[in-house]
Amino acid sequence: MEKILLSHGGGGEEMNALINDIIFKAFDNEILKSANDAALLRLNSTNLAFTTDSFVVTPLFFSGGDIGKIAICGTVNDLLMVGAKPLYLSCSFIIEEGFSIDEFKQILNSMSKTAKKAGVFIVCGDTKVVPKGKCDKIFINTSGVGEVIKEINTINLGSQQKAKILVSGDIARHGSVIMQARDELGFESELESDCKPLNEVVLEILKTITPLAMRDATRGGLSAVLNEWAKFCKVSIKVKEARIKISDEVMGICEILGFEPCDLANEGTFVLAVEEKDALKALEILQKFDKNANIIGETFKDDKNRVILETIYGVERFLEPPKGELLPRIC
Amino acid sequence: MEKILLSHGGGGEEMNALINDIIFKAFDNEILKSANDAALLRLNSTNLAFTTDSFVVTPLFFSGGDIGKIAICGTVNDLLMVGAKPLYLSCSFIIEEGFSIDEFKQILNSMSKTAKKAGVFIVCGDTKVVPKGKCDKIFINTSGVGEVIKEINTINLGSQQKAKILVSGDIARHGSVIMQARDELGFESELESDCKPLNEVVLEILKTITPLAMRDATRGGLSAVLNEWAKFCKVSIKVKEARIKISDEVMGICEILGFEPCDLANEGTFVLAVEEKDALKALEILQKFDKNANIIGETFKDDKNRVILETIYGVERFLEPPKGELLPRIC
Repeated sequence: MEKILLSHGGGGEEMNALINDIIFKAFDNEILKSANDAALLRLNSTNLAFTTDSFVVTPLFFSGGDIGKIAICGTVNDLLMVGAKPLYLSCSFIIEEGFSIDEFKQILNSMSKTAKKAGVFIVCGDTKVVPKGKCDKIFINTSGVGEVIKEINTINLGSQQKAKILVSGDIARHGSVIMQARDELGFESELESDCKPLNEVVLEILKTITPLAMRDATRGGLSAVLNEWAKFCKVSIKVKEARIKISDEVMGICEILGFEPCDLANEGTFVLAVEEKDALKALEILQKFDKNANIIGETFKDDKNRVILETIYGVERFLEPPKGELLPRIC
Repeated sequence: MEKILLSHGGGGEEMNALINDIIFKAFDNEILKSANDAALLRLNSTNLAFTTDSFVVTPLFFSGGDIGKIAICGTVNDLLMVGAKPLYLSCSFIIEEGFSIDEFKQILNSMSKTAKKAGVFIVCGDTKVVPKGKCDKIFINTSGVGEVIKEINTINLGSQQKAKILVSGDIARHGSVIMQARDELGFESELESDCKPLNEVVLEILKTITPLAMRDATRGGLSAVLNEWAKFCKVSIKVKEARIKISDEVMGICEILGFEPCDLANEGTFVLAVEEKDALKALEILQKFDKNANIIGETFKDDKNRVILETIYGVERFLEPPKGELLPRIC
């Protein structure tokens, strides 16, 4: 009998198979299959974006954030990625019997603070408590509704002969912080998760240009985003390793633990595809918010729909979609 | 150190305290505090309803439904209760490593079928997998967006000198089915959960009258709804036991296990408060869908804001809000 594996939730190939072959088949409809970070809906004359995310991150508190902060950022950022201004969030808790009310309050305060920073209101919620041992401390679902300012539909990326690919900052910080927090070697660093709401930078981008595609590089990291775009939009993408910023701390952790930084999760860093003419303008805005933002590569048309990484030594190799277990409970 | 108890999720007094004293305080805003089943939002010229629910029911499959059916019904019904036509649902899974893919498919099919019946589309989703032992099989969150047809704001109930209270069918079937499924005495019956989407009956009600308040009587059952209304709207409510329909099977289970049927959960049965002039019209519509629908009592103004039950022997007693653990993981 087939069983669910950890890799079915890892953000890599196995998760895509579960979603495409099983879930999309059962819930067959065009909006769902558009595979954007949020659904684009039309209600009367209003264009809405709608998205959901459940958060099961462990540990609950980590350098630079906690499950509450990540639960707000994740949903706010998903709305932004389809060109919507985030407005309203729901918040649903599944709590293990015996969980500390002090820690719960700490998480609530973090959510409240992050929601204010992101300019959203938490307007509805739900609380379930399960007996001890039936969940791990606390899981949080946030869903969100936003108003579409500029409709960003990833499929548009496929219609371009050449598009420029940008990243909004240095990569792999969230994944590295979580690995470090869990690792028993016990090394420490100053590293903080990149976890943050992206409303300011994305709303400024939307005021100035119309991106072809945006995606926050969460589970599966930069590799997952680029490979999904290549497959879904039928383009190939070439990026230069030298242009992808990675901090020394992240590099150290990845080397010791044997991870590929491009596979590691981010929680406040996004990938942007823009028309060639908009690339410098986009970079200028991104760099106002993060000096590590950069143009990392471009798309081109061929039959392969693969992602190619030009290494710092000038050698080209495929950047494969992440596969296997990666890191469970990263978000 | 204070800890979360099972009763914090039971739908009774302890849950209300957690929500009012801790969660509402952290997420302070007027929409959240209106304490409707769904938030009422205005976006440009469109009136939206937005709601969320996480489902942790055990067993996953029970007489008359499963976690998938309940996850659709719960959210669809919450939207209906504020006078909205349910349109779009999100769906987020937290799955335990090792869960059967066949059972997962069964749940998905049940969700798909129920969504069709309720006239809604599942337009966005999320899937997380946690290691074995870190959750119990599968938890599902559904959030929903609907378009408000007639704004039902519970607070309106308080402005009436006298309002009639109706129930849409016989009560306590869902709670009884779950108790029976878990009970080790092993008695069996023909009883089925009332779990169903209420779109047809509620949309017909909304076409004809404007209810003062509607609430599906889930966790905490009829007692929870009536006591919340009494407290929130500053009215007292008197209901007659003889008018509240309870099936023989439910009565039997409650007598053996020592439960009060008014405290037990329903998943497709709702309570309706209407102006006196609309009561018979409302009853007529309810009875077209369920012969067990009935007018069970009325509100009146005094300083106590309590719920009074006139028993079948003509004696009056308070119908207290449910308290304590009730039944964990009922939905």
